[in-house]
Amino acid sequence: MNALNRIKALKEKAFEQKSFDGFLVSNSKNMFYLSNTEGASCLFIPKKGQNTIYVYSVNYEGVKADAKGFGVGLVKRGENLWEKVAGQATACGVRKLAADGLSVESYRGLMKFLRGKTTLKIRGDLISGLRKVKDEQELELMRRAGELTSIGMKAAQETIRPGVKEITVAAEIEYAMRRGCSWGTAFESSVASGIRSAFPHGGCTEREIRKGDLVVVDIGAVYQHYCSDMTRTFTAGKPSAKQQKLYDVVRIAHDKAHEAIRPGAKAKDVDTAARNAIEKAGYGKCFVHGLGHGVGLEVHEAPTLNQSSKERLATSNVVTNEPGIYIIDFGGIRIEDSELVRKRHAEKLTSGPYTLNAQG
Amino acid sequence: MNALNRIKALKEKAFEQKSFDGFLVSNSKNMFYLSNTEGASCLFIPKKGQNTIYVYSVNYEGVKADAKGFGVGLVKRGENLWEKVAGQATACGVRKLAADGLSVESYRGLMKFLRGKTTLKIRGDLISGLRKVKDEQELELMRRAGELTSIGMKAAQETIRPGVKEITVAAEIEYAMRRGCSWGTAFESSVASGIRSAFPHGGCTEREIRKGDLVVVDIGAVYQHYCSDMTRTFTAGKPSAKQQKLYDVVRIAHDKAHEAIRPGAKAKDVDTAARNAIEKAGYGKCFVHGLGHGVGLEVHEAPTLNQSSKERLATSNVVTNEPGIYIIDFGGIRIEDSELVRKRHAEKLTSGPYTLNAQG
Repeated sequence: MNALNRIKALKEKAFEQKSFDGFLVSNSKNMFYLSNTEGASCLFIPKKGQNTIYVYSVNYEGVKADAKGFGVGLVKRGENLWEKVAGQATACGVRKLAADGLSVESYRGLMKFLRGKTTLKIRGDLISGLRKVKDEQELELMRRAGELTSIGMKAAQETIRPGVKEITVAAEIEYAMRRGCSWGTAFESSVASGIRSAFPHGGCTEREIRKGDLVVVDIGAVYQHYCSDMTRTFTAGKPSAKQQKLYDVVRIAHDKAHEAIRPGAKAKDVDTAARNAIEKAGYGKCFVHGLGHGVGLEVHEAPTLNQSSKERLATSNVVTNEPGIYIIDFGGIRIEDSELVRKRHAEKLTSGPYTLNAQG
Repeated sequence: MNALNRIKALKEKAFEQKSFDGFLVSNSKNMFYLSNTEGASCLFIPKKGQNTIYVYSVNYEGVKADAKGFGVGLVKRGENLWEKVAGQATACGVRKLAADGLSVESYRGLMKFLRGKTTLKIRGDLISGLRKVKDEQELELMRRAGELTSIGMKAAQETIRPGVKEITVAAEIEYAMRRGCSWGTAFESSVASGIRSAFPHGGCTEREIRKGDLVVVDIGAVYQHYCSDMTRTFTAGKPSAKQQKLYDVVRIAHDKAHEAIRPGAKAKDVDTAARNAIEKAGYGKCFVHGLGHGVGLEVHEAPTLNQSSKERLATSNVVTNEPGIYIIDFGGIRIEDSELVRKRHAEKLTSGPYTLNAQG
């Protein structure tokens, strides 16, 4: 689906179904999704009038080269972005404006120039609702991002051994992904070893991995703007009986959630499928986060899979399935794949061995 | 300077000089700066009462392990963060609250629970004003980040040759930085070759570098949370006379700005020093961005060096000096170092040859 069709879908949702008459987009990923451009300050979509990308001089030529079917408004040094946007909104007769998100300062700046004639509502859900259903072209890129991430995980497994620094493992992971043409990392690679693995977002440090350590590796490649997200947990050498037992519990939880992922399933129920398995084993309090989240242009996007979620999964959503058990002063275990919701089952976009012993 | 001294400095600025009686911090870098913790949702600093970090369960144990001298408030699933913060603000008698920044949605959420008893002003400048003056401990980390970035640039120079993909150059840069214990990249590495180099934010693609191409390499390592920023421009093989001429102009502009960087200098005048050199050569319209920006926990922070800037440089600021010339359908040239403002001169934190020919 090209950018102009996505704009059409947004106009249908925002203008026909919700009776707004203008939409202001300022999230950079939303702008890319709707215009295929990068580096602009905002995109203004009036019900009647020209869709316009506003951009400062540093990125003007780049945006102009990529923007097909859009007006491109140069914001010169000393000019006020919100004055220009408000000017167009007024000229287009916009009275009920929606936006995907704004800081308080931008909001106040814009409202000043709208002079009380236009209302503004934050409706980020309208674009995130479109973005969570991936088209075939997006899925092709996400499959490649998943493959690259799996290549990175293989490098992690091959590198992890006693005496190697966490940060060295990250170096090998990212190098392997980049050599496969990853565009970068979807988030800061995490290689958390020993008792640090008990922190779900452990990052990586210069700590040397020791024999018997748990090592949680959470990584994501990016391919042509699309992210991936994957976690495996390894031990440096033979796991202890307790490590293996906990791993088996998380593995079962991961499998239960995988089976529950299907079109129409409540996101909450998918979380419950994993949570029940962990609670049954007596570790419910150690699963300190939700099961997962959508992945796409951002590594965290809609839908959310946890006990508070009101959403249902739909065909062509891509979500993470990442149950974990975290025990302070002992360590943590998490297993995560990015999974595509298909008609009859979930397709894993990341793949790699469910092997606890890195050497095994 | 430890976190508690920074809090003290903020309280002095916000509460004594500006008569606020509470400060809400929600920018993640500001929270790290003031509390040495990561992964929290916000930090609330009342004039009278306990400084409190609010955090969801996923990062609760991690924050608790790092937070020294702070209250740590767990926000459980289903609880409202802003209700808790407003509750503490009310209990502490806060009437004039400042914040470093908030989305419209968070602002509305918080104001609802403050029930009209408290005003809120966005004053991000109060913390950025502290952050732009680096202490010795910060400068040690920034020097290391600069060294790692310079190592990455050396790898770029060694890799760039006809037939190599931009993304392969990025792989070698990042691998070299990571092996030196970089914590990651301060921003997406940019290796923009050929006519793509005419876009200041070119990123990198799978394009193969061709003989005679200009290649703009813009990279930054991170060391223990502190960023660096550096650009060099190379040719794949012997430069043309025009490429060399433009390079020499940018080099002079970079040197002129370097000489102008000193305590008390107007940021605008430093920009002018570089801009004049480029204008004199007839390429003023091709220098489409400001000269530079501050660097620290973020790669873009205060102060800003451009024609609109009202700031003056001060000792222990770290700023970029990055003039450039960009010619559509020809290519671009930029030279950038991160520079520390010292008493009598600017100290370059990044270093590397000012050599146009990658092979020379």
